[in-house]
This record gives sequence, structure tokens and C-alpha cells, in this order.
Amino acid sequence: LRITPVVLSGGGGTRLWPMSRADHPKQFLALTDTLTMFQLTVQRCSDPGRFSAPLVVAGSAHATIVQEQLAALGVTDATVLLEPCARNTAPAIALAALTVPPETPILVMPSDHVIKDAAAFDIAISAALPLIADGWLATFGITATGPETGYGYIKIGDEQAHGVHRVARFVEKPDTMRAAEMIASGDHVWNGGIFLFRADAYLEALATYSPDMLAAAREAMAKARSDGNALYPDADAFAACPSDSIDYAVMEKAEHVAVVPVSMGWSDIGSWDALYEIDGEVNSGPVMAIDSARNLVRSDGINVHMVGVEDMIVVASGNDILILPRGQSQDVKKIVEALKNKR
Amino acid sequence: LRITPVVLSGGGGTRLWPMSRADHPKQFLALTDTLTMFQLTVQRCSDPGRFSAPLVVAGSAHATIVQEQLAALGVTDATVLLEPCARNTAPAIALAALTVPPETPILVMPSDHVIKDAAAFDIAISAALPLIADGWLATFGITATGPETGYGYIKIGDEQAHGVHRVARFVEKPDTMRAAEMIASGDHVWNGGIFLFRADAYLEALATYSPDMLAAAREAMAKARSDGNALYPDADAFAACPSDSIDYAVMEKAEHVAVVPVSMGWSDIGSWDALYEIDGEVNSGPVMAIDSARNLVRSDGINVHMVGVEDMIVVASGNDILILPRGQSQDVKKIVEALKNKR
Repeated sequence: LRITPVVLSGGGGTRLWPMSRADHPKQFLALTDTLTMFQLTVQRCSDPGRFSAPLVVAGSAHATIVQEQLAALGVTDATVLLEPCARNTAPAIALAALTVPPETPILVMPSDHVIKDAAAFDIAISAALPLIADGWLATFGITATGPETGYGYIKIGDEQAHGVHRVARFVEKPDTMRAAEMIASGDHVWNGGIFLFRADAYLEALATYSPDMLAAAREAMAKARSDGNALYPDADAFAACPSDSIDYAVMEKAEHVAVVPVSMGWSDIGSWDALYEIDGEVNSGPVMAIDSARNLVRSDGINVHMVGVEDMIVVASGNDILILPRGQSQDVKKIVEALKNKR
Repeated sequence: LRITPVVLSGGGGTRLWPMSRADHPKQFLALTDTLTMFQLTVQRCSDPGRFSAPLVVAGSAHATIVQEQLAALGVTDATVLLEPCARNTAPAIALAALTVPPETPILVMPSDHVIKDAAAFDIAISAALPLIADGWLATFGITATGPETGYGYIKIGDEQAHGVHRVARFVEKPDTMRAAEMIASGDHVWNGGIFLFRADAYLEALATYSPDMLAAAREAMAKARSDGNALYPDADAFAACPSDSIDYAVMEKAEHVAVVPVSMGWSDIGSWDALYEIDGEVNSGPVMAIDSARNLVRSDGINVHMVGVEDMIVVASGNDILILPRGQSQDVKKIVEALKNKR
């Protein structure tokens, strides 16, 4: 059975403001490539020997941009599930699992992550498939490269198959000291939010641990309206669905949960600094930089001219420009907050 | 006899790029006040007890902006001399001197200098007037505040009247060591390019030292066309005029040349750093600065958002933004050069 890629595109974060905004979030930006991160995610699973047509779950506000970006990629066989409201990842994945035949393996991927080493990802998928066929739920554990406090961690347990381990424990976002301890232990990986399981295995786990969620999702899909390649789950039914992450609702509770540790050049590009770490010095767009070094400069229109500037992040989008020192890009939230308060 | 203020507005420098441009030079910007530097220069000489209506000498490309800025100031009695081409200061002042009655004292001022202490300037003018009546040519010598290499210097000679000295020597722009020596000597001042003399005294000096220039200026004015308050010297005649500065053409050669040393909060705002020195930290326009300090940030439209930025110059104008560290604003010329080469 071929794998159905499920691309979760519901996010609307502003950590990459001013380029990412509520109406144009990160996954729809071409930050690391000429393709957007959404397009790269779809393209990553386009081998017809392994994958069937992709299933995209997106907010209905992003229907147009999703269709445009699929079309630009030449993808004509995708199904687009348009959520009438946001209910976090567990219900979104439920909608997808209810759309495919029960025994279909589904590979659930956020649409705003970068994976530089596709071959490593492919090997990890292959490693997981036998357990998946037996009804296991698998998550991919990203080899940690530092004591990040922004991710959940997974403690790796006993090996169940070559390269695939039982999950010993899920660990919520830690403080720096706890993160450093986990890194030092050598048996913890980051929870990257990428999952592989059979649709029926997921739905069975939901039936056990979140039956209300499953019932709401079923009703929403039973009453769904379709329009071309788009599916519109029923708004009232979906609104009644509890909101929860797949980690809380299912993975931390289920019995047969596996982790596949993998080092695959992964990043969630959670900040401009994270993008700099991946791509290094970049001047993108109409940028003139003289006697300047170690900057990340991007503009989609404003002409940026710099002399003697070092270690800065400069991002211009529309009529807005952001300027801050490298290493401090988490402070973008201070700007976004201040802008909210101004309105 | 009242003094006629002669405001020289022919400059088109780009040291304050991107705000100052060839078609919108520095003097027409409101950098230090709600009024532009041109308007401040005109307003500085508006005491009707001392000054008669101003005479503005500007490039014909700036006719509209000059008239607009005079009108906004409520000045209705100005005469605007529109040069058909640029011939440096000596011919520009000749045109002005030929426009007023011969015995009129004229106070020649660049339109892009700031004078914070108008009272000190006024006292210096009063000190010079008796010698002016006797036919001397006076320049105002700015008390040097540092070993600047961008200005000419004047060595102060014997005192001729209270506070007014014979010029011992004009010194061209020096290197830093020579500048420091002159500052240490205590008897050198900056040549600020502000002059006071009777129109006929200036024209007599021109007749002696630059007769071709005087002849060309006379012909240009004899054939001048007038339109409302505007005077258009004849283009062909003025084109034939030699191009030279008043310093080279007249002041360094003439016999009775006086300097009035004065400390009056003068600046030619020759760079963004110079503006910072005068005004200190400024956020002007749509600027949001969080956890930021000691910056000069100006925008005429682009929304500038900064976090954790220190000691930077950020200037946005139109669709251009300039970013550079404080102390390096002379490097604006590298940008301007690079832009020229791109075209």
C-alpha cells in the first residue's frame, strides 16, 4: 500500500514577521528555496512508487493560496481539506484519516519545516513501515543539535526493529538546564511533529483516548461538502470538536508508540535566527550591502542599502521593515505585540 | 540702509541620501525643525528693522519647491533668482549683487546650514557693519569644535574693530594633523561660507579679480526675463560665465577682507552623523523602536520596526532605506556611487 502524505498547513504564526503574517504564514513563503516551504513539503513526497496523491489540511482562509501553490508545482491530484476553524493537530489529522481507506499509511507533516537530507528521511520512513503495518504509531525523533527549550523531547526506549524504538517517555518543553541534561544523556531526541501510522490505527487510538473528538470529526466529514478537489468539513460539527494536539490527545497515551531517531537537516525555522543557521548569510531581494558581513537581509520590494553593517537581521515586506541584531530574533514578538496594542 | 539677505540655494548634494537627492536637496528638508533648512535660513533674516525682503538664488529645477516653501512661510516679498545652470557661488552672488541698489549691504548665506544661536549671529553682523560700510568684505569665522578636515580654515589676523579682524590667511581643507595644529593654535576658525558686504564692494572686487565673470553676470542680468517674483538670467550669457567659488574668485585675493569669529551653534549638517550631533537621538516618522538606544531613525513613509538596535543610522525615504552604524555616515557616498554605477 502506498503512503498518503498528509500536509498540515493550519499554522498562522508571526515569528517570521513581517514576511509571515496571519493571512500569509510562514509555510507559504519561499525562504530557503525558490519553492515555498509548503511546496517543498508536498514535493518531498512525490515519488509515485512510494506515495499516493497528497492530502492537504489547511484553514479555509488559505484555500486560494494552497490551490495556487499546488498548481504552480504542477500537482493536480491533491485533495485539500479546508478546516472551517482551527482545532489543533489531533482533529486535523482525524479529518485526514477519515478521508483515506482505513489501511492506508499516512505520513503527517507540518508544512513549515525544512528537511535538507531527504534521503535520511526516506530511510527513516522505510525503517518504520513494518511496525506501522502492525498498527504502531510512529513519530520521527530529530537528533538534537543544542539544548533548545522551544521543542518537546522524546526519550528513546528499547529498539523494536532496526532503527525503530519504543518511546520511553514524551517530555514537555524543558528549561535550558533540563534540556542540556537530556542532550548529555544521549538518549533524547526532539519531537518534530512528523508522524507515520495507518489511518485506522490512529482512529482506533482516538476512539479509545478522545472519543468525543473522533465523533465530531466523523460528523464533520459525514456532512462534508466537496467542490472540485476541495473538501469542506461541516462547520458546526467541527466547531463542536475539542481542540488538542496529537501529542496530548493520542501519542502520549497510546500503547504501541515508536520513535525513529533521524538526523536529516531538519529545522522548523522558528525564527529569523533559525533561518540564518540553515542558510547562512543571505541578501535576498533588492538589497545593496557594502562592507557588510554576517547579515540576513531579505526584501520583497523596499530597496535596502547598507554600509558597514554586521550581524544584523533586516527583513522588509510590504511597507514594513524589521531591524534587529542577530541572536535576538525571538524579540520579533515584542514588535508584533506592540503592533496589536496599537490597533 | 537695511541688509538684503541673499539665500544661496543652488546645492544639490547627496550626503544625506536617501532623503536628499538631486531633485530634492538637503536645504528643502525639515531635518532639525518643522521648518526646512531653507525656510529657517529665510526666517532667520526676517526682522524688518534690520533686513529688507530676501533674495533667493536657486537652480531653475528647484523653482517650484522654492516658491512653495516661501509661500508656506508666508513670505510674499522675496525675489527668486533662478540660475539657468550652476556656476558655483561667485557668479550666483554676482547675480544677487546686480539685483539690488549698489550700496545695499548683502548678507550671503547658504540655505542648508543650521544656526542654533541666532542672537550670537546677530551680534556678529552688528560688529561687522561699520567695516562693511567702509567697503570691506566680511566673512564669519565659525569657532572650530574639532579638527574637521571637511572645511576650509581662516587664520585670524589683527583686530580692525571690536570683534572684527583682518583675515591673515585662508587655508584650504587640511589633513587631520594640520587641522589639529590649527585648532591648537587658537587663532583659526572654520570658513562657514557666510558673507557680508556691500553689493558694490563685491562687484568692484569681481571687476578687479574676475572681470570675465562680472561681464557674463552683467549680460545675463541685462537680458534677464522676469515672471512674477522670479528673475531668469539669460541662459546663454550665464553659461559663458566662468565657474568659481567666492573664496577663490574674490575673498582670497581682495584687499580689505575681514573675519568675524563667532560661536553660534553652526552646522552644515554634512552627514547623518552631523545631524545626530546636533539633535541627538531621534525617531522621526513611522518608527517603532523597542529596547533601542542612541539611534538616528527617520522615515517619510516606510514603517520602521526595531528591537535591540543601538548606535545605528536608519533613514527611509520613498522606497529606499539606508542602514549604517553611527560614525560611518560618510560612507553614504559609497552607496550613492554604487547606485550611479548600476544605472
